[in-house]
Parts: sequence; C-alpha cells; structure tokens
Amino acid sequence: MVRQAGRILSVLLLCCGLCATPAFAEDGYDLWLRYRPLAGPAQADAAAHARVIVAPGTSPTIAAAVAELERGFGGMTGRPLLRAALAEDGAIVLATPAQARGVGLGSASIADLGREGFWLLTTTANGKPVIAILANTDIGLLYGSFRLLELAEQGVSLAHLDVRSAPKLQLRVLDHWDNLDRSVERGYAGQSIWDWWTLPDYTGPRYTDYARANASIGINGAVLNNVNAVKESLTARYIAKTAALADVFRPYGIKVYLSARFSAPIELGGLKTADPLDPAVKAWWAAKADEIYRAIPDFGGFLVKANSEGQPGPQDYHRTHADGANVLAEAVRPHGGVVMYRAFVYSEHNAADRARQAYDDFKPLDGRFADNVIVQVKNGAIDFQPREPFHPLFGAMPKTPLMMEFQIAKEYLGQATHLAYLGPLFQETLESDTFAHGAGSTVARVLEGKVDRYRLTGMAGVANIGVDRDWSGSTFNQANWFAFGRFAWDPDGDAKTIGAEWAQMTFTPDPRFVTPVVAMMMASREAVVDYMTPLGLAHQMATGHHYGPGPWVSELARPEWNPTYYARADATGIGFDRTVSGSDAVGQYAPALAGRLADPNTTPERDLLWFHHVAWDRRMASGRTLWDELVAHYDRGVAQVDAMQRLWDALAPYVDAERFAKTRTFLGVQQREAMWWRDASIAWFQSRNQLPLPAGSPAPAHPLDYYRAIETPFAPGH
Amino acid sequence: MVRQAGRILSVLLLCCGLCATPAFAEDGYDLWLRYRPLAGPAQADAAAHARVIVAPGTSPTIAAAVAELERGFGGMTGRPLLRAALAEDGAIVLATPAQARGVGLGSASIADLGREGFWLLTTTANGKPVIAILANTDIGLLYGSFRLLELAEQGVSLAHLDVRSAPKLQLRVLDHWDNLDRSVERGYAGQSIWDWWTLPDYTGPRYTDYARANASIGINGAVLNNVNAVKESLTARYIAKTAALADVFRPYGIKVYLSARFSAPIELGGLKTADPLDPAVKAWWAAKADEIYRAIPDFGGFLVKANSEGQPGPQDYHRTHADGANVLAEAVRPHGGVVMYRAFVYSEHNAADRARQAYDDFKPLDGRFADNVIVQVKNGAIDFQPREPFHPLFGAMPKTPLMMEFQIAKEYLGQATHLAYLGPLFQETLESDTFAHGAGSTVARVLEGKVDRYRLTGMAGVANIGVDRDWSGSTFNQANWFAFGRFAWDPDGDAKTIGAEWAQMTFTPDPRFVTPVVAMMMASREAVVDYMTPLGLAHQMATGHHYGPGPWVSELARPEWNPTYYARADATGIGFDRTVSGSDAVGQYAPALAGRLADPNTTPERDLLWFHHVAWDRRMASGRTLWDELVAHYDRGVAQVDAMQRLWDALAPYVDAERFAKTRTFLGVQQREAMWWRDASIAWFQSRNQLPLPAGSPAPAHPLDYYRAIETPFAPGH
Repeated sequence: MVRQAGRILSVLLLCCGLCATPAFAEDGYDLWLRYRPLAGPAQADAAAHARVIVAPGTSPTIAAAVAELERGFGGMTGRPLLRAALAEDGAIVLATPAQARGVGLGSASIADLGREGFWLLTTTANGKPVIAILANTDIGLLYGSFRLLELAEQGVSLAHLDVRSAPKLQLRVLDHWDNLDRSVERGYAGQSIWDWWTLPDYTGPRYTDYARANASIGINGAVLNNVNAVKESLTARYIAKTAALADVFRPYGIKVYLSARFSAPIELGGLKTADPLDPAVKAWWAAKADEIYRAIPDFGGFLVKANSEGQPGPQDYHRTHADGANVLAEAVRPHGGVVMYRAFVYSEHNAADRARQAYDDFKPLDGRFADNVIVQVKNGAIDFQPREPFHPLFGAMPKTPLMMEFQIAKEYLGQATHLAYLGPLFQETLESDTFAHGAGSTVARVLEGKVDRYRLTGMAGVANIGVDRDWSGSTFNQANWFAFGRFAWDPDGDAKTIGAEWAQMTFTPDPRFVTPVVAMMMASREAVVDYMTPLGLAHQMATGHHYGPGPWVSELARPEWNPTYYARADATGIGFDRTVSGSDAVGQYAPALAGRLADPNTTPERDLLWFHHVAWDRRMASGRTLWDELVAHYDRGVAQVDAMQRLWDALAPYVDAERFAKTRTFLGVQQREAMWWRDASIAWFQSRNQLPLPAGSPAPAHPLDYYRAIETPFAPGH
Repeated sequence: MVRQAGRILSVLLLCCGLCATPAFAEDGYDLWLRYRPLAGPAQADAAAHARVIVAPGTSPTIAAAVAELERGFGGMTGRPLLRAALAEDGAIVLATPAQARGVGLGSASIADLGREGFWLLTTTANGKPVIAILANTDIGLLYGSFRLLELAEQGVSLAHLDVRSAPKLQLRVLDHWDNLDRSVERGYAGQSIWDWWTLPDYTGPRYTDYARANASIGINGAVLNNVNAVKESLTARYIAKTAALADVFRPYGIKVYLSARFSAPIELGGLKTADPLDPAVKAWWAAKADEIYRAIPDFGGFLVKANSEGQPGPQDYHRTHADGANVLAEAVRPHGGVVMYRAFVYSEHNAADRARQAYDDFKPLDGRFADNVIVQVKNGAIDFQPREPFHPLFGAMPKTPLMMEFQIAKEYLGQATHLAYLGPLFQETLESDTFAHGAGSTVARVLEGKVDRYRLTGMAGVANIGVDRDWSGSTFNQANWFAFGRFAWDPDGDAKTIGAEWAQMTFTPDPRFVTPVVAMMMASREAVVDYMTPLGLAHQMATGHHYGPGPWVSELARPEWNPTYYARADATGIGFDRTVSGSDAVGQYAPALAGRLADPNTTPERDLLWFHHVAWDRRMASGRTLWDELVAHYDRGVAQVDAMQRLWDALAPYVDAERFAKTRTFLGVQQREAMWWRDASIAWFQSRNQLPLPAGSPAPAHPLDYYRAIETPFAPGH
C-alpha cells in the first residue's frame, strides 16, 4: 500500500505538473482575479473560513456571487466549496437583513450602507464560526463577495474581518470611446471588446469576464460607444445589440449607457432641425428613449459631447448647453435615466485661452440643468495631460451636480508601453482644495456632494480596455483600471494602498515583491511628467496621435492645436500667462486659491509654467535657474526609468516568465523613449534660449532636426 | 495506508478537477494542436511508444520539435517524456541520415523525400522498439514530429507506422492582407495578429504559436502585409519589425515575404519614375533588396499586385507585367529570393469581360518572366466566389510557373459566421482537368509542374487569421486554414479525409462525432452555393463589404462592379454568355474543354449560368425548368442549413460548452441569413421574370423593397 500510495502521489504530482502550465498560464487575462493557490498559512486560513456557502437568495446576482466565491476560494484553497442552507462551521453567509435570521445570523443594522454597501464580518451563526456578508441588496452582497475574495488574495487573514464599506459616489462609470467598426479612439489595447457585428446573437465569455472585473471594483455603469457618436448607435439594429450586452451585465450591477449624437433627430428622424426647444425634436427624443427602455428597462441614460471638436450641439441653434442637456434628460426621466453632459468644450471660433472656455460656457448655466443631469468635467482644464491643476469648474457649480472624468487610457502618458501608475494622478486631483466653501473643500468632497448638496454624484473613467489578451495592453495598465474603480468607490482613497492591493492580487502578496514594486509604481507617473512636461508644461506631444514629443509644432491651423501655444518658449522665458496680465484663467478659481496662483512665488513649482510665463533665469526653490531646473527634471525622469528597469530585473524571481518579459520589454521601450522626450525637448528649448546645459547634463544625442524629422506612422488610437 | 491512499486519491481527483476548467479551457486558441488526454487504449498505445526522445540535433528547429513532442505527448499521455542519447524502448528518434547510425538506427534511403519530407517508421534500434522520424533536414524532422503528434491525436495506433511524405509544392504560403494600422482587408477574425506598433521590441507567445500551427501543416511562408501595399512596409523602421517576426518564425521553417508597392522608388526613393526598365529604378530595388537581406538573410521575396484595382504598376509606364516582375526578381535573385506576381488584374479602362482580362494580359507574356518569378493565379477568373470554374490560365502558361491563390477567408461565403468547409472547393478546383496536354492535365498537376516542367511551384492562401481568441473567427473556420495547408502539401489530397483529420484533432476521434460532423462539413460549401449563387451565378453580394445579397445593384460606376453585370437576368432568361456569341471567355480554355463549355447542353449545370445566358423555361436534367431548378437550389441551401443546425444540436454530448455554444449561435445566424439570401434573390429574379414559384416553395417573407432597403453598416473587413 505504501507503493500504491507512492504511485498515486507520483501521478498526483505529475497531473498537477502537467496541468500547471495551461491552468496557471499568466497571460494577464485573469487581471487581479487570478485566484491562484495561496501560500501555506494563508491557504490554511482561507480554507478554514471558506468551506461552505450559505446564500438564501436566488437572483442571478446571487448566483454570480456564489459562482465567484466557488471559483475564487476553490482556486486559492485547492478545495471545492460546498453549499448549505444553514450556517455551519467555516461558512460564508450571504444575507440581506431580511434573510439574516433565517440562516442563523442575528439582526444587523446596516441601513447606513445604502443600496450598494456591504459588511464583512467574522462572527458566529448558530454558534458556529462564519464569515457574514451582509448587505441591503443582492448587488451589495456581490460587492461584498468580491471584497472578501480580494482580501484573501491579498493574504489578509479572514479570522477577524470587520469591513464596512459603501460607495461615496452613485455613478461609477467606464466611458468606452469605442466605435462601431471596433476601432477605439485613444485605444491602445487592440480593438473594442464589443464585437458589434456578432451581437446580439453571440455573447461570449469575455463580456461576462468584463462584468466580473468591473463588479469586483464596484463599477456600475458602462458607456458603450465613443463620445464622438454616430447616429447608428441609436438605431433599432444597435439598440438590440446594446440590449444583449445589458443582459450580460445586469447580474453584475452594471447599467449600460450610450453616447447620443445630438443631431440624430435630423439624421435618423428626418426632422429639419435638432433644436432642443423644438417640440418635434423633444418628441423624437422621448420616443427614442421609450424605444430604448422597451429593450433595456434599466438603461442608464445618455452621455453627450456637444459643440466641441466638431460635434453638433445646441449652440448650433443658439441654445445653451443646459437646453441641450435638458431635452435628453426629459426623454429619459420617466424611465429613471440620467444624462451625463460633458463640459469638455472649446471652439475653433473662440480666441480665448482654451483652458478657460469650459468654465466660461458652463458657470453661467449653474442651476439651469434638469434634476437628472450631471455635468461631467475632466480633471483638468485642457485634456488629460500628465499633470494638470484641477478644473476650475469643481466647486464653482453649487447648483449643478458635477462628476469627474478621468482618462484611464494613457493618451498623453506614453500610451500602451510606458509604465505610469495613475493612482497618484487621481489622488492629486481629488485631494486638491477648491476653497469653494473655505479650506477643506476638496475636489473629492465636491464630487461626493458634501461641499454643495448634489442630488447626483459620480465619476467616469475613459476606459483602457481592448481585445488584447491582457485587456489593457500591459499588466501595469491594469492597475489604472483597478485604481479608477477604487477611487470611484471612495474618492478619499489612497493611491499607495490601492497600488499595493493591486500588486498583491496581480502578482503575489510577498512583501519582498510588493514593497519595491509599489514604490516603483508610485514614482512612475512623476517620471512621465518629468521626461515629458515638467514644471507645468502641457501638450508638448506630437500632433494627432499624441505619441512622442512635438514641442516645435506651430503651424497647425488653430493656435490651441499647437504645442508652442502651450509652452510659449522664447529667448527670454517660457510658460503660459494665465494671470490678469494674460488670459486670467486663474480668476476662475476661488479667490483664496486664485490669489496664490496669481503670483509665481506662491504657485506650486509643479504648476508654475501652467499659470505663468517666467524668465529662463528665474531662481527656483532649489537655487537653480528655471532652465537648469527644467533640464534637471528631464534628467530625473530618464533616471527614474533607468531605476525602474533595474528594479524590475531584480524582481524576476517573483514573476512568471510571460508577464515578466513583456513588462521588461516595455520598460526598455520606455527607457528609449524617455531619452527621446528629454533630448528632443531640450534640443528645442535650447534652440529658443541658446542657453548651455548645466554641468553634468549630457547634450541631446542628435541635433534638433533629427527629432523634428521623426515620424511615427500608424500610431494606434488616432 | 488505505485511508491515506484514499485521501491522496481524493486530493488527486480534486486537483485534476480544479485544474480541469482552466487547463482544458476550450476557447479555440489551441486549434488542432490541443493535445488533450487520449481515451484509454489510445493513451496506453501512445504512452508505450512515446516514453523517451532521442534527438542528436541541436538546432533551434530540433529544439522546437522536441518541445512540441514533449508538450504533445505529455498532454496526451499524462506522462512527461524523458531525453536520452541512444535509442531505448519506447523512444522517438529524430535523425537525419548522417545521424541515424549514431543513435542506433540502420541506414535509411530517403533521398526521394527531398529537403522537407519525412519518414515515420515504427521499427527497432539497438534491438529496442522505437519510432523513427527520418528526414534529410531538421525542418523535415520538425514536420515529421508534427505528423506523429497529429496521428496520435487522431487516435491512430503508433504500433505499425510507416508514413513517407514530402510536399509536392515548394512554396506553401499564407498571404496576410494585413495593413500596418492592424486592420485586415477581408479579415473577419479581428485585427491583424501583427502588432506592428510594439514590434520589433515585443514578440509575445502568439507569434510562436502562429508558427507552430503553420509548421504543423507544412506552411513555409507568410506574406505579412496587404497586397494593396503601402510604401512604409519597405522603410527601415518596418524592415526591422519584419526581421523580428522572421527571427521567431525561422526555427519553424517559415520565411517571411513582403508585398511590394510598385511605386516605392518614387515615394521612398525620391525618383521621378518607377519605370521598371529605368536604371535608377533597377538600382533602387536592388539596394532595397540588399537592405532587407542584411536584416533578414532568408527573406522569401516579394508579392506584387500591380495595375489592378488602382494599384500602380508597370503599365503606368507602358511596360508589361513581365517587365514589372523582372525588375523585382533581379533585385532579390542574388539573395535567393522569388517574386510572386499576381495575375489578378482587371482594368476600369477595359470594356472586355472581366473574366477574360487576366488571361488576355498574361498569356502573351508566357516565357518572358525571369526564372525566379512565379505568377500567382486565383482559382477562378473573377474573385473567390462560392463556386467558379478553374482559371483558364492554368495549363495555358507552359513556360511560366504558376502558383495557386485560394482565399481561406470567406469573403464571399458568409465571412466569419457561416459554416462553410472549403476543402471541397479547393479539391474541386485542383482536380479540374485543364486538358492542356490531353485528359488528366489537372490543375493540381499543373501546379506540381507535372504538366509543364515548372522550376518553381507553389500555392498561396489568403489567410483567415486575426487576433480573435480562436484565430479564425469560428472553430470551423480553422478547418479551412488546416485544409489549405494540407492541399498545399499535397494538391491531390482528399477533402473528406482532411476534414476528418481536422475534426478528430479539434474535437474528438470518437466516430460517433466525426462521421456526422464530416458529412456536415462536406455538404456545407454546396449549401452556401445553393443559397447564394446556384447554377453558376456569381458576385450577387452587396456592394463593398460583400455581405448579404445585392443582386439588384446596377448603378455603380463600372459595369463589372454590379451584380446585374454577372447575372444578366431579364424577362426571358439569365446568365452571362461567355461563348463566341458573347465574350468568348470560353475560348481561353483548351479546345477539348472549350468545345464542351461552348454548348449549354454539355456544360455542367453547376456552371451553366457562368458560361451561358439561357431561357427561364430551359429544361434541366431534373426535368424542371431553369427557374424552378434555381428556386429548388435556393430551397435546398436553406434546408441544408436547417439540417446542419439539427445535426450540431445532436452532437452536444461530444463538444465542450464554449465551442458548442459559439457554433450553435453562428449556425442560427447562418440559418437566418440563408433565408435572407434565398428570399431576396427570389424576390429580385421574380421581379425580372414575373414567374410563379414552383408548388410548395414559399414566397419570400417580404416584398423586394424590404430586402433592397437592408443596410449592414460597419461590416468587418471592408
């Protein structure tokens, strides 16, 4: 029998060995929901607390939660979970307050957790040790189930859980800039995951996995099509396709939304106008909304980009953005829908500083939007730069709910290949103080409706998702999707904590890996700022595709399309004067802040050239001149990427071969391109100021003309 | 100890159970190289014959062969293979004749197998039972290794192998119509798998898996870019990217080729002309070839589409296609490269029947091409229709090597979703008799250089490969890739045998599955012919994207762009008169065949309307009128799809859930669209002939205008 057992053991090991390669293939598809076997003690802990599932609910959402717990703990513990009707030793109990007693739990006071919150509690039921997941709704139970799995993946002991969590924002939405031909505007991870052509017939596993991933981080909405919308999205053919996706997403608490093309009443309805005050236009939108809701009873509503970058809008009819938003809001209101109306507007017919146009347009409309409209404002006043000061509209619209629009896709931050963890960017914006109602009026609190009482709250992230096997084009880009979800759940979150959670789940909880990799992540976005646009510079990217440096570009038709418009470098200085002597965009901020930003001496150096045109020889806090400081930042950015390369190489023992190699290759690309950015930018600015480089700082490898001649045809996402 | 063993067994079963889902995920990625555990007796047989690998060679190709054998037999037998230096019991021995003695094999006479053939033989070495894989080169050994694995996957006993096989064609090439922005012309399986943007830095596992799949079916070349080529493919930037792919493919015996843009000497070289006889143009191409070969020493050569559908070419300079081909051939000759020059030419300035233009252009050039040029001819004279008679150039160019161009992508056969196994299409063309040198001068023998002595031979297939997880958009589309490879290896192959091999490997060798599914596959292409273009009709597809019916389209600028040009239906009859009373395209065939095709009574009914315009009341072999026969074919096509649906549903017990569901969904789409094709076509032709439908044949579900109004925006591949 010893021989027999030995033989079985051999087969066992062999079986696991043979299974290992495909079963544990680390191609990034599983994101942070990998559920790989835990290390010994953590596995024993999880196995003791996750033996049985008790879930009296029977909805598709509960079924999804149970399936996820089975999959997750099955993978992490190597043992299948059983189902039981009553709490027993090692049970995970999913219950609403109404169900709690029936499964042996006491009464629970969780009214404060609202519709989506949950409470994870290691407790006893019927005298047996259990983990209770309590929530007021099935969606809350699903969110709690995911959080429990995530804690286990992070190596947290389940022995003493007491986690109460509820989202601080209502709308937590991914905006997909996906076109119906499957191209993705500013997409760097392959085609759109929406295969519109085979919808509504075919809804393969990837759509469900998309929903799982989003539910795991609390995202509850998805705008499926590009804000630069085409009329076809609103046709019966495409409504049916959208409905098929809504059916897949519904159990996971995710509503679908559509970007609406403002001129659709003309293009689809055959009307002569899309004037939002025209009764026929109102009737057309109402009928269209009715048609959509017949197919999708829980349709979320519309996202609108109007009168911006060539899109049609209410101003075509001399109406306001409020008029434009309200006609759509009226159409979806009977069905409980909302309108997310983008404040990202600037006009080729407006000579004003682009940074101030959204405020100029929207501030006067405060209070004139319907009660189911929320205005969606980008984090900064230009366009998703590596760094921007927070948008002056935050805090300036007390009677109009505002939601945040972040870009998860790194359009201006190296796109697919550069490693740039955006958690610090999100956090920096969210913790910025608007001073709207005195100190402490942070952007986060504005969004949460705590500065002004907003009836709607939300955060949108422009998705970085495509058909690439790893969804986001690189493993580390997944961290930005994850961090967005966490910040949308809690805008007061901490980027470092979130990054650590992500790294633990995505790779390993081993602190020998997590500590250095999180340090690398936390420094990575600042490195991009340093090698691309330090000290408040912005929009120095090449034309159109925004890949690589183009600081010299000045010949485009509109001033604000040119990098030279933003940097304004000349023989004597650099920077955009947004004080009263310039565009006075500074005056759009609350007086307590505007006063500081009006003076270069009280403006944070990181934003200096955003707000001020200053002399090359200006003395900086470091004691260096502005020019020397600028060069030092470029050098620091390059050095940081060098350090990231070395650090990653040292982490090889902790990472599987495939993801290690891809990240390593991409860091090599980033290193080369950081140097390209540094050299091209310095060569250009030197051609303006004729100043020598500070001692020890190497000259650009090539003359300026070399960099100007570089072309990058077929850049993705454009 | 019994309890202990029992416990271990439980863990074993659990382990395998838990591994099962991900390890054996059947998402189609593994194609026919799934290597799943064999059923009991077959597993024992394989395990007995595949215990050890003996491979004295050390090249990357041998390493690839050994890795594949380890992976394959490891998966199929559940036991890892060991390595040994000398033959022992259960060894697989890979040896060239020079290596055979050293590993204990006798001398082998395999000179007849050439550079790429192999011999699989169950034999003895050093008195031990072994399987010998013998070949003259490492590539032959790799091909033999794949064939051995395939036989095992098909459930063939390895106890008495004696398989000698060598390819009958030299160039076995996939043509990728992939653009540098990753779109794929006529691609229905997602974006291009070439991620040009991250090349040459990143060469992920998918490129290797592509090479493995192709090597497994003997494909030895890949043209990476669209025949509608852009100049950038020939720049240093893209040559480096191509070289990175060549490095990945090299161990698998796959050469890379590029489509060359004829006007590149102007666009890249700054010359004033691309005249192929201009010395500066010759020098530019020679220098460009030198540059490419410095990066890719085994670069295959160029594919050229010239003076067709708007592409530049030698006729722009009043030169012939031979002149055009020869300038490129001269450039690559010193490096051993070839030029594949496409005969798919027709001109918007030529009023002649499109079907005869290629012959008219190329036949007079016979013998005027350089010795490293091969002219690539589509299977039929129009464009990859569901059925076309073989191209009249086959057999008509005795002094010019011709290679076949098939389309694996189903541009005109329902694209991604319709199930249409193309094996019968390939076979039908290849076994067609050209009568060039009397009866038996089949197209296959022409290609093999047996009708005329060709110094070069080959077959190209327009790839159906994209980033879709299952590579080809559907599981059954994979069969067309597989069948192409098999027919390129042996143009005298048998579609049914090939289909069975594919089904055995892709699903299961269980005959209860294989027999019915192969019957379904074998009937599937004829079903498409029946519901789209029966009795010799062609090009009745909607404009541009070629998806769905458009038989009424007649308003396009050029006659030959219109379906009405091809069907010529009027009140009295239908069909294209290609006899002497019409375009006399019939006269392009050898006299023995032309005589038969000139008379509708001796023309096969399946090609009747291709060659003849005949009356609606013409009496057919069935006794029905032509009109009734036509309707019967449409009905039969629809009925066949109904039967395919029923058959597939009955096969559920043999197929994993994911692939079963996707195929089932697609068959549903096909059923709906077959009806659409049938109804739209009948409604249109009835509007021409005003004839009643035969008894029992239902009227179209909608009036003609309904079908004419259908639009399919954003159709893929266009």
